[in-house]
Amino acid sequence: MKPIQVGLLGIGTVGSGTFNVLTRNQEEIRRRAGRGIEITMVADLNVERAREVVGDRAQVVADARQVIANPDIDIVIELIGGYGIARTLALEAIAAGKHVVTANKALLAVHGSEIFAAARERGVMVAFEAAVAGGIPIIKALREGLTANQIQWVAGIINGTTNFILSEMRDKGLDFEVVLKEAQRLGYAEADPTFDIEGVDAAHKATLMSALAFGIPVQFDKAHVEGITKLQGADIRYAEQLGYRIKLLGIARRQAAGIELRVHPTLVPSKRLIANVEGAMNAVMVQGDAVGTTLYYGKGAGSEPTASAVIADLVDITRLHTADPEQRVPHLAFQPDELHATPIVSIDQVVTSFYLRLRVADQKGVLAAITRILAESDISIDAVLQRESAEGEHSTDVIILTHETVEGRMRAALTQMQALPTVLAPIVSLRKEELA
Amino acid sequence: MKPIQVGLLGIGTVGSGTFNVLTRNQEEIRRRAGRGIEITMVADLNVERAREVVGDRAQVVADARQVIANPDIDIVIELIGGYGIARTLALEAIAAGKHVVTANKALLAVHGSEIFAAARERGVMVAFEAAVAGGIPIIKALREGLTANQIQWVAGIINGTTNFILSEMRDKGLDFEVVLKEAQRLGYAEADPTFDIEGVDAAHKATLMSALAFGIPVQFDKAHVEGITKLQGADIRYAEQLGYRIKLLGIARRQAAGIELRVHPTLVPSKRLIANVEGAMNAVMVQGDAVGTTLYYGKGAGSEPTASAVIADLVDITRLHTADPEQRVPHLAFQPDELHATPIVSIDQVVTSFYLRLRVADQKGVLAAITRILAESDISIDAVLQRESAEGEHSTDVIILTHETVEGRMRAALTQMQALPTVLAPIVSLRKEELA
Repeated sequence: MKPIQVGLLGIGTVGSGTFNVLTRNQEEIRRRAGRGIEITMVADLNVERAREVVGDRAQVVADARQVIANPDIDIVIELIGGYGIARTLALEAIAAGKHVVTANKALLAVHGSEIFAAARERGVMVAFEAAVAGGIPIIKALREGLTANQIQWVAGIINGTTNFILSEMRDKGLDFEVVLKEAQRLGYAEADPTFDIEGVDAAHKATLMSALAFGIPVQFDKAHVEGITKLQGADIRYAEQLGYRIKLLGIARRQAAGIELRVHPTLVPSKRLIANVEGAMNAVMVQGDAVGTTLYYGKGAGSEPTASAVIADLVDITRLHTADPEQRVPHLAFQPDELHATPIVSIDQVVTSFYLRLRVADQKGVLAAITRILAESDISIDAVLQRESAEGEHSTDVIILTHETVEGRMRAALTQMQALPTVLAPIVSLRKEELA
Repeated sequence: MKPIQVGLLGIGTVGSGTFNVLTRNQEEIRRRAGRGIEITMVADLNVERAREVVGDRAQVVADARQVIANPDIDIVIELIGGYGIARTLALEAIAAGKHVVTANKALLAVHGSEIFAAARERGVMVAFEAAVAGGIPIIKALREGLTANQIQWVAGIINGTTNFILSEMRDKGLDFEVVLKEAQRLGYAEADPTFDIEGVDAAHKATLMSALAFGIPVQFDKAHVEGITKLQGADIRYAEQLGYRIKLLGIARRQAAGIELRVHPTLVPSKRLIANVEGAMNAVMVQGDAVGTTLYYGKGAGSEPTASAVIADLVDITRLHTADPEQRVPHLAFQPDELHATPIVSIDQVVTSFYLRLRVADQKGVLAAITRILAESDISIDAVLQRESAEGEHSTDVIILTHETVEGRMRAALTQMQALPTVLAPIVSLRKEELA
């Protein structure tokens, strides 16, 4: 059988990796897929760079539409990124009857419903394993491996840049800004790191996982997103003393009122495997009612790890593209007619426990006033850590760990505590998850 | 569309879990699979017990052949276990045109080639996610998630009983026999634990993973198998001091001479995630040339975790059974005509580093004699730990960590060292893997 022909749109880091791995492992991949898979055409505005990568092994063009218009191309890989031209080209490729593989989480988290509907209409597949956690086959685990389960929650370290920064802050006791510069120097953070450090990238991925886990549409606009830019070294150290590490987690959780969808720095017990995922590595925990806790770990970014996921999608499509479209694995794990309108709850309704750090005057009755507010708010305390004030100082840190509560209640209590004259600085509050 | 009808052969622990999860989550599963999935017929010699589980929701019979003969049944789940009647029934179900789902690693590791060939011939699927690492979708990861890669090695904690025993030995400083009894009392070990503690169960699973990873036939008879029964507490403690933990690993590794396939107690660096997998949990590491290191963690046994994998297979089959049989995902990851005869190397050819414990006379020149033998054997030393002999004692322990070497060379050196008059007891040698 002649090889399946693939067109590649965008040959930057991941695109080069995809081309190189597909070439290097072509024999191994053919033995698995039952048919050769070849990138025969590449579109990139930087034609020179593209030629450097592919040599004479593929046709290089500047115009992506030439690839889409080529009737010999069966699958189009979209690695341009962003919401703009990538959306247009993905839709055009689908309209032309091409299967589409993409690593573009931003595109799918925001325009996924439109794209999946178009693909269904046209009878083609859209595959996106590379969009979440790079080379880790987490999409496949959620969509196929855990189908027996009512999934209860998904929680992941799904942004390598921020995990690298947090690991360095903890290991070396450095501040955020210093580590960010180092990460940029090492290539772990981009020149404009906003999407990473503000949690937007993780929220795109958490949005995709929420759809796969719970059978709801992608709803990035409903996600609660906090990054790590305000995180202070002091809180990393206090957390450590209390047996916790701070990780930027993307969380999707089913609760009585609906689905929680949120990204924020989170205290996690140090003894959990996920707390020990260091550097730029990714890991996702999935809790199902039958399987219990599972965890998936690996490289979440980079040229070849991401290419690994892109190519897995190519093999899936090669193996399955002759199947009746109605009988394929559905894009979002649940059949398209079976998505539910389960609401995504507002952050006020989210249930977590909390870590609080209060800078307080070193005088009698301070702790009593604070704990009274918490008690009156029906928030119970798990642990208190009070530092002796240093010699000559008249203020000190009080750290409180609470049991689970509804966030709205905690916010009201925080307002009251902040108003106490003995509370001398803005209270730091961080969410804590036991992940048990 | 009417539900797909499933017949269940054997309703013990996993069978009950499968029936219960399928009933409890039927709506969620239908939304994913696009069609209801119902166990309508159950065969078990213990008809009473079967009736207690299924009530009047399925027909119960004593004779498995009645299930296979039922033309309404699309899929047969084999949960009888063992190599005997399970093999006969699986082949009969295939011959009757039923898809087969099984958790039976022993059956597939030994008779897999025959069973997969029969299934191919008849155009049906044989699915076995539950056969390795319980609820962890590791078969799917190897067969579909990592298809881009030349897989370099797979190493897993794939037997919960032995991992529980090793965790307890380390935590509580207890001896093997004591912990085994405790494990039996808690239900983590069977009344006859031979298959678990001698490494046979892990070897069945490693055999399956070797086929999936490297595109070779299942060859259980070529596996090197060592259990944990001879492991001593002293070595667990010395390993700990040197920064290692001892785990029973199933390893399949590609090297120049062929494929290594082996199960044995192994020193693993304490800082690796897999070293921190405790109790009855399972974890599998997979190293691919593109993706790098990935890890999959979860419950490797138990009623509902294993049921999770069985049902995932049911959903896969339900989603894909209308596909052209030639276009389905191949049973062993590689297309059946594309398996290679890469040899499985003998244990003498295996390459690892070693931990050695020698009980030696406390006198001059002892260490020099030992290190000379190693040097002459071209085995280089990574670290030496020598205990001061206790007051009044005239012997002491010397611990040596070596760099990588071919096992045959180490065995020869061990024979020489054992012959030294200053070596007072049988030398303990354990393999060590950095898993980096």
